[in-house]
Amino acid sequence: MTQQAKNVLYAQAGGVSAVINASAAGVIESVRQHPGQFGKIYAAINGIKGVLEEALVDLTDMSQADIEYLKYLPGAAFKACRFDLGDEQQRADQYQRVLDVFTAYDIGYFFYNGGNGSMLTAQKVADYCSRHGHPVTCIGVAKTIDNDLALSHCSPGFGSAAKYLATSFFEATLDILSMHQTSTKFFVMETMGRNVGWLSLAPGLVQDAMPDVPIIILPAERPFRREAFLNEVKRLIDLHGYCVCSVSEGIRTENGQFISIEGEEHANGHTFTQLGGVSEKLAHLVADSLNIKTHSANPDYLQRSASHMVSLTDWQMGYQAGSSAVEAALRGEHGVLPVIEKTDDTPFIWRFKTVALQAVADLEKGVPDEFIREDGMGITAEALDYLRPLVQGEHFVSFKQGLPNIKPLELKNVHKQLAEFIDA
Amino acid sequence: MTQQAKNVLYAQAGGVSAVINASAAGVIESVRQHPGQFGKIYAAINGIKGVLEEALVDLTDMSQADIEYLKYLPGAAFKACRFDLGDEQQRADQYQRVLDVFTAYDIGYFFYNGGNGSMLTAQKVADYCSRHGHPVTCIGVAKTIDNDLALSHCSPGFGSAAKYLATSFFEATLDILSMHQTSTKFFVMETMGRNVGWLSLAPGLVQDAMPDVPIIILPAERPFRREAFLNEVKRLIDLHGYCVCSVSEGIRTENGQFISIEGEEHANGHTFTQLGGVSEKLAHLVADSLNIKTHSANPDYLQRSASHMVSLTDWQMGYQAGSSAVEAALRGEHGVLPVIEKTDDTPFIWRFKTVALQAVADLEKGVPDEFIREDGMGITAEALDYLRPLVQGEHFVSFKQGLPNIKPLELKNVHKQLAEFIDA
Repeated sequence: MTQQAKNVLYAQAGGVSAVINASAAGVIESVRQHPGQFGKIYAAINGIKGVLEEALVDLTDMSQADIEYLKYLPGAAFKACRFDLGDEQQRADQYQRVLDVFTAYDIGYFFYNGGNGSMLTAQKVADYCSRHGHPVTCIGVAKTIDNDLALSHCSPGFGSAAKYLATSFFEATLDILSMHQTSTKFFVMETMGRNVGWLSLAPGLVQDAMPDVPIIILPAERPFRREAFLNEVKRLIDLHGYCVCSVSEGIRTENGQFISIEGEEHANGHTFTQLGGVSEKLAHLVADSLNIKTHSANPDYLQRSASHMVSLTDWQMGYQAGSSAVEAALRGEHGVLPVIEKTDDTPFIWRFKTVALQAVADLEKGVPDEFIREDGMGITAEALDYLRPLVQGEHFVSFKQGLPNIKPLELKNVHKQLAEFIDA
Repeated sequence: MTQQAKNVLYAQAGGVSAVINASAAGVIESVRQHPGQFGKIYAAINGIKGVLEEALVDLTDMSQADIEYLKYLPGAAFKACRFDLGDEQQRADQYQRVLDVFTAYDIGYFFYNGGNGSMLTAQKVADYCSRHGHPVTCIGVAKTIDNDLALSHCSPGFGSAAKYLATSFFEATLDILSMHQTSTKFFVMETMGRNVGWLSLAPGLVQDAMPDVPIIILPAERPFRREAFLNEVKRLIDLHGYCVCSVSEGIRTENGQFISIEGEEHANGHTFTQLGGVSEKLAHLVADSLNIKTHSANPDYLQRSASHMVSLTDWQMGYQAGSSAVEAALRGEHGVLPVIEKTDDTPFIWRFKTVALQAVADLEKGVPDEFIREDGMGITAEALDYLRPLVQGEHFVSFKQGLPNIKPLELKNVHKQLAEFIDA
């Protein structure tokens, strides 16, 4: 470490993915390769909230063994917040606090790991530093299972969730196939994605192994048409004896109402804005309408935490999301996000390139029309071509006493130097 | 094959497990080792229903490659029925038909692979053959993820479902741990088991890696006490910031009403007897009562089909359930079921022994009192000692194009010889 070396601050935000910690490892290992440029490595606990709270851990001396654990650890090793900075005009105190923490810890590089919403926070910090002449390089680290990051061929985290969902759906399909004659004839699995249906497409990969599988796919991008759906279920069951279905949690009626919270009432009069449960609703609808036995699965967090089922391709994307951010910093870039660019189809070749944070912050990229079948209940060959490379490759985790050999990192908070910040 | 060699008929019934096809492979490979004793190997498609329908496939020349596929194939390779023979007095035609099929195909050995209910069918066939002097050896092949087979230390299929659930819950727990400060504070996962709570115990294994994990376990054997439950959730969240919960789909109120179908109304006036959805109900209850963000997962069929997450110990039990049945037949036993006997604790040693089918048919073994914490919301060290050996060992499936390299077997039905049977 030279006199000029500045310290690094890394933080995680938003819903986790199976490879968000691979990104952390990518940042840490890349930073260590450049001791002349970078000094200490800190992580904020709980994203930007941890920055405000001066809740930091020092990773400078993290053992290589812990880094290896980190690479396949589910969840967010340094805790991820659902919290964004306020408007700069109204919450100048927050921005000043961020600068105070940066200054106190001699931070020269801020790497913020998250999705669309978190990139807005990264951009706000980057802009504020620029406008106030504070020499902190701010770079985003891409992550989201939803795959809705604009300008990126795909999002780190998506491929692993897709591989988990496709595998699980494949296994369950063989279950239904084997039992439908005297038992369940309709099975539906729900995937995450409030506004975008990328993950609902993944089970379509089952068609690679079972070209004639009677599958219905309902992405969030298309309205749910009850009669057309029931007709299609009936048609497939008449033809094949059973039907399997993948549905976005975020499907809505043609009037824009979420199916998953249609007709639900809760105590305290508060309305649930959170989704989940649409698969059970569809299973009941089909059971009631066609008078057959149905079943539904909702993997929920299992799909974004399944580090035992990472796509190696996605894991590499996750790792390089981190290392590319460090490389961008080394090149002197600021206020940017490394995103994935596909450079060839056969074989699938990709690399990271940087785009301005403001070009992606708070945007959502939905599934394009050409990936969805015209009737809105299936996907096209183009969609399969897109999905297939993203789920390639496996990493078999090690096990201990029958369970994956994973454990939360033991984090020791840095002794606080500043006065407490009251985030009013 | 000698003159005396009689043919073998194997069939699968009831809900599938991740290792039911390992049992099939155990039967097939063991039969092949005794060509003097056994002739052709048939499988009925769809259990006893396939016997009635004379829907048979000939496995005698099954390739070793297909047997290797079979060993880790999810679902039931030969289709599993939820269908039992009627009462012998009222449905003598069914029993006569079974004998006609046995005679037409020179069946001397009938191996029936299933759980409690299916063992009743196996017993009925065994008794009928005995009383009518028909020389068919009938042996059960043990299987059920529910782990409720009487007289067996555990049931083949349980260990793999338990390993899948414990792994998934572990991964999701690290997710909640990392996000609870600004997001979900309560997560609940539902496990199968209408009357018995064995599978709900499995997530308790997370305590091996995280001794202080704030976990609630609600097995079907204990009534659901709303206030006590909410108090425990609140206590754990106050203490740890979050709480994770594993719940049997079959939990009931103190009045015996299933929570999962409490207050549900369906079109057509028909009442759902099928369970599922209790996790979402608990998540809503906690959200409404404590005003916090909650999430729920219902893996449903995923837990019984996940051949990518078999316990090697369980797989060996599944395989030997099949091979032990063949060995029992070779010893001249009839009307029996090989069950698992634990012979030592450290190390865990087990073997198969046979018990009479009538001693297990249609019985259900629940979780013993000493495995459940006194307040009914957790499990004991004895329960963990019981569970731990059953999830040991891994088998990493091979992948193809990013998904497990599995595919339904191509089955060619044997040309029917008999007149059609109308099962009125």
